[in-house]
Amino acid sequence: MIITTVKELREYLDLQRRSGKTIGFVPTMGFLHEGHLSLIRRAKAENDIVVVSDFVNPTQFGPNEDFESYPRDIRRDEELATGAGADLIFYPSVEEIYPRGSSTFVEVTGDITRILCGASRPTHFKGVTTVVTILFNIVQPQKAYFGQKDAQQAAVLMKMVADLHMNIELVVCPIVREPDGLAMSSRNTYLSPEERAQAIILNRALLEAKAAFETGEDDVEQLTRLITGKISEAPLASIDYVSIYAYPSLEPTETVKGKALAAVAVRFGKTRLIDNIILEK
Amino acid sequence: MIITTVKELREYLDLQRRSGKTIGFVPTMGFLHEGHLSLIRRAKAENDIVVVSDFVNPTQFGPNEDFESYPRDIRRDEELATGAGADLIFYPSVEEIYPRGSSTFVEVTGDITRILCGASRPTHFKGVTTVVTILFNIVQPQKAYFGQKDAQQAAVLMKMVADLHMNIELVVCPIVREPDGLAMSSRNTYLSPEERAQAIILNRALLEAKAAFETGEDDVEQLTRLITGKISEAPLASIDYVSIYAYPSLEPTETVKGKALAAVAVRFGKTRLIDNIILEK
Repeated sequence: MIITTVKELREYLDLQRRSGKTIGFVPTMGFLHEGHLSLIRRAKAENDIVVVSDFVNPTQFGPNEDFESYPRDIRRDEELATGAGADLIFYPSVEEIYPRGSSTFVEVTGDITRILCGASRPTHFKGVTTVVTILFNIVQPQKAYFGQKDAQQAAVLMKMVADLHMNIELVVCPIVREPDGLAMSSRNTYLSPEERAQAIILNRALLEAKAAFETGEDDVEQLTRLITGKISEAPLASIDYVSIYAYPSLEPTETVKGKALAAVAVRFGKTRLIDNIILEK
Repeated sequence: MIITTVKELREYLDLQRRSGKTIGFVPTMGFLHEGHLSLIRRAKAENDIVVVSDFVNPTQFGPNEDFESYPRDIRRDEELATGAGADLIFYPSVEEIYPRGSSTFVEVTGDITRILCGASRPTHFKGVTTVVTILFNIVQPQKAYFGQKDAQQAAVLMKMVADLHMNIELVVCPIVREPDGLAMSSRNTYLSPEERAQAIILNRALLEAKAAFETGEDDVEQLTRLITGKISEAPLASIDYVSIYAYPSLEPTETVKGKALAAVAVRFGKTRLIDNIILEK
């Protein structure tokens, strides 16, 4: 079932809530892949009703990013989401979410939104935290599900939920990968066959760093150099960042103590891919 | 009953909600007066359970404002609020609301937060919208009550609630005045007897403007001059602003068409008082 208006969605969910049903929420930008479906399955296992939102949010794209070309296919999304256990797809227009334009913002400030993807996408997380707040206010779920692939997004949203005392539990689920190791992403569809073949270098490089870490290398500079060197072997790869931060605080560290997040962003032509791995003693 | 922790408040309110009770919320900074009590009475008339928060929010005060000296008296507040119909007073510490400091913000941007009080208090409304969001997330009321005395605050919060699709109805209640016309305010307690006597000039000036408007004067510049002239008759008064905007949009206007808000902020010594009146054809 597809619902496109806030009013209809609220009426439906109020009815469910009144009969004691719990609500799980999976916010997506659509063009669903196995990564999203894993979130929906998890949500269905833990809640009575699962709402999937399918909304390409303009405010989290920068002026020269891929908002217009971002892939969309609502019929396919409906089939996939329903197959995975979604009870309804919330598919609003931009005007439904921002009827008066966009002048109220929710922002997590500090290094957590300035490092990694925040460096090259300075307004991205402000767009994400604002739209997630809006969607939370509309759906009012008990639990919401996000992928570890967007590790920084998950950390930023965890902070937002804690700081604003939102009464919602965030569940962060593991990265789902293609058989050759490429992390699933709606943006993989942009890759030419040659780029697609080389894109596996992200996961390979992260796995090599993990192996080196597990055999004793805990120096962040050395590990970063190892990942950078490996990715540079792919001639079409252009590195945006290779970074290692303490996890989940995302604070800078010189050696890996406890848990750390090794994260990369790499461009192949016009396509920007991200991936990450947790290093843990 | 006074509750000081988020956890206890949530437990109590969840119980009420589960038995079908509706929740009305009156956020205050304490030191309650008849203005607050009118909000509590209205809330009690319209909801099963009334929660009053009593929290002097540091983030809405500027560096040279009166956060430290703001009057506080929780025992008196408890008695007054309970007498007016409050079921419980939420009285958290600053650490309870901001356990990790303050780095996530909710902000309404644009002229609506830059005009009037926003001009001399540039971070004030950002503090207000953030703390009100936090309190809304903790209390999760159906309705929340604010005074028309803080007309700009009410307009900003209305915009925030609409833009972020918060599932809460805001109720704005009329200004309550002392017998001589001075708008009730916790800050009136700062006034020396001489300042207190002269402070009635705010209401007098606004009433004169209203009378002039009702006998045909609709030019904003003329009405503004009239108010400014009248307030200047009080030797201890130092005007921060005298402004008239279309209401409720708070957009600039040269003549009063439909509804307008005439608003003033005036200092008496270190005390800054605000007042306003609606002009309506």
